Amino acid sequence: IASRNSLDICNSQDKDGDTGGDDIEGLHGKSLSDVPSSNVATFGGTFNDHSKWKRKSMVTLALTVLTSSQAILIVWSKRAGKYEYSVTTANFLVEALKCALSLAALARIWRKDGVTEDNRLSTTLDEVSVYPIPAALYLVKNLLQYYIFAYVDAPGYQILKNLNIISTGILYRIILKKKLSEIQWAAFILLCAGCTTAQLNPSSDHVLQTPLQGWIMAIVMALLSGFAGVYTEAIIKKRPSRNINVQNFWLYVFGMAFNTVAILVQDFDAVVNKGFFHGYSLITVLMILNHALSGIAVSMVMKYADNIVKVYSTSVAMLLTAVVSVFLFGFNLSLAFFLGSVVVSVSVYLHSVGKSQR
Amino acid sequence: IASRNSLDICNSQDKDGDTGGDDIEGLHGKSLSDVPSSNVATFGGTFNDHSKWKRKSMVTLALTVLTSSQAILIVWSKRAGKYEYSVTTANFLVEALKCALSLAALARIWRKDGVTEDNRLSTTLDEVSVYPIPAALYLVKNLLQYYIFAYVDAPGYQILKNLNIISTGILYRIILKKKLSEIQWAAFILLCAGCTTAQLNPSSDHVLQTPLQGWIMAIVMALLSGFAGVYTEAIIKKRPSRNINVQNFWLYVFGMAFNTVAILVQDFDAVVNKGFFHGYSLITVLMILNHALSGIAVSMVMKYADNIVKVYSTSVAMLLTAVVSVFLFGFNLSLAFFLGSVVVSVSVYLHSVGKSQR
Repeated sequence: IASRNSLDICNSQDKDGDTGGDDIEGLHGKSLSDVPSSNVATFGGTFNDHSKWKRKSMVTLALTVLTSSQAILIVWSKRAGKYEYSVTTANFLVEALKCALSLAALARIWRKDGVTEDNRLSTTLDEVSVYPIPAALYLVKNLLQYYIFAYVDAPGYQILKNLNIISTGILYRIILKKKLSEIQWAAFILLCAGCTTAQLNPSSDHVLQTPLQGWIMAIVMALLSGFAGVYTEAIIKKRPSRNINVQNFWLYVFGMAFNTVAILVQDFDAVVNKGFFHGYSLITVLMILNHALSGIAVSMVMKYADNIVKVYSTSVAMLLTAVVSVFLFGFNLSLAFFLGSVVVSVSVYLHSVGKSQR
Repeated sequence: IASRNSLDICNSQDKDGDTGGDDIEGLHGKSLSDVPSSNVATFGGTFNDHSKWKRKSMVTLALTVLTSSQAILIVWSKRAGKYEYSVTTANFLVEALKCALSLAALARIWRKDGVTEDNRLSTTLDEVSVYPIPAALYLVKNLLQYYIFAYVDAPGYQILKNLNIISTGILYRIILKKKLSEIQWAAFILLCAGCTTAQLNPSSDHVLQTPLQGWIMAIVMALLSGFAGVYTEAIIKKRPSRNINVQNFWLYVFGMAFNTVAILVQDFDAVVNKGFFHGYSLITVLMILNHALSGIAVSMVMKYADNIVKVYSTSVAMLLTAVVSVFLFGFNLSLAFFLGSVVVSVSVYLHSVGKSQR
């Protein structure tokens, strides 16, 4: 049961992007040329740039704080004892809550601004048809997750998950056709190496004994999750003027649908016999709330920043969590953690320096 | 005795620079303006640049190969059994051998070119007065080395030795007034973090429990060894047209003198009772030969490149050693080693990219 709980950790960072997107080919030109004009009326460069920068920073900060408190909740729940709640029902509730929050935000906007072309909920089949794709990709990835544990142990899987960083960078380049400078690529490799270093523990070397099947599955999973993330960004940025809450609503509706499938496939018996909310506790509720909010923060980062910012934000959150855990739980920081943090910090610096050379 | 043997390892990388230099203030302007013109007659830019680059690469390659075979000899000697030879007598012989090799090289040059102002051995008090300083600094550092083990264990000391990288960078900037670009600084921090990561082992975290005295001694030792290295470069580059073998001769003469002091202070009784060559074996002889050659290679790198190149060269040698040991001794590479190597490789890349921004 404890290991199911830790599976939930593995999900948490990816889950948030449950969505889908148009014909990818069709998105290229659009997303690239549309993004600069954004959905904010241009008031004259400086003010607009400043407010965009401010919004981008706010959503990034929110994502970082939510992700690190997420991890802290998980540690807390592990320390408090074992929880036997079903991960699939919790994931379903996360999607449902995100849906409800998007609708509540929309209701407020409708009252204030009235219903417009950009904020109305009804949509064309053409627009909505791409929304299920990311959710479907995550479903496949999460199913694969149950099989990879035949080849890798849980700490090894945490190490292999850092392949997501590289796959996101590569797919971001290929699918969104956005260029990173050479220094930014170097920074991205460092981010991956630094995060992995920070997570090293005496048993980490086991991961080197992973059989070929394990490596292939890990790479496929990294590609699926990277693809889902990048595809979500493509969908959200395809129509910049479209209200983000409408986009979120449709993403989360399909998230709910695919999580229903997951409940039926994986936990049908448990839910029927023990009930939907079996094993839920206060911490479970807080975790669901936190996952929902960080899911929305991820969407915001996709809309107003990009997948690269998302990866940096969640990586820095991982480090923050460890530092906060020192004070909350009396954890000891390892030398490896310290070295990894130095490398990640240099990576963040190089990424921003590398911008000018893009 | 095994720990004395490992002390020798610690010495080996620094020993090589045993030297001394003029009034430092006086060196600033000179070394900066003299270096570009070098001691090679200018035949016209391209050819000259190419031959300089070739010579620089050759000496760097030689240093890398010699340093890594040095470490392999040390591993070999440890595996072959314990050696009870005195480290101070071995160090004395290294200096004596370097002296002899420099004189042999000079003799050849005198036969070929005759004795000139630049290659004659006799010198002014003004020129020679700075040569004892690096050797004296190393003597102090090596004496301190015996005391730091009261606070840190041997693997911990290996980790702390990476502070040398940072101290060399800082003193290179301050004393030689040569600028590194921001990206090169980032690369240097990464080099230090990467080397340390590559050396991580399950007991490395002990180093975090080092008491304040241990940290202070480690920092002082890093500064002494960084200062000695940078000062040697200043001496050697002060008069670019001066033959390197003459400069080496004077450096090594004082190396011999200071090592005589070390024998008297530390091993006088052992040498008197057991004899100078007690405990020597074939491996000891090979190690002395190797130390002598790599010492000369360090001087060459100081003359034709700089301390930064030296640090990169010895760091890459450390990684090479580990890879070669896999084949020679069946060592296993750890995940930490792999991650450290990635970070060091990115660092080397960034250092060369960062040049254009200097």
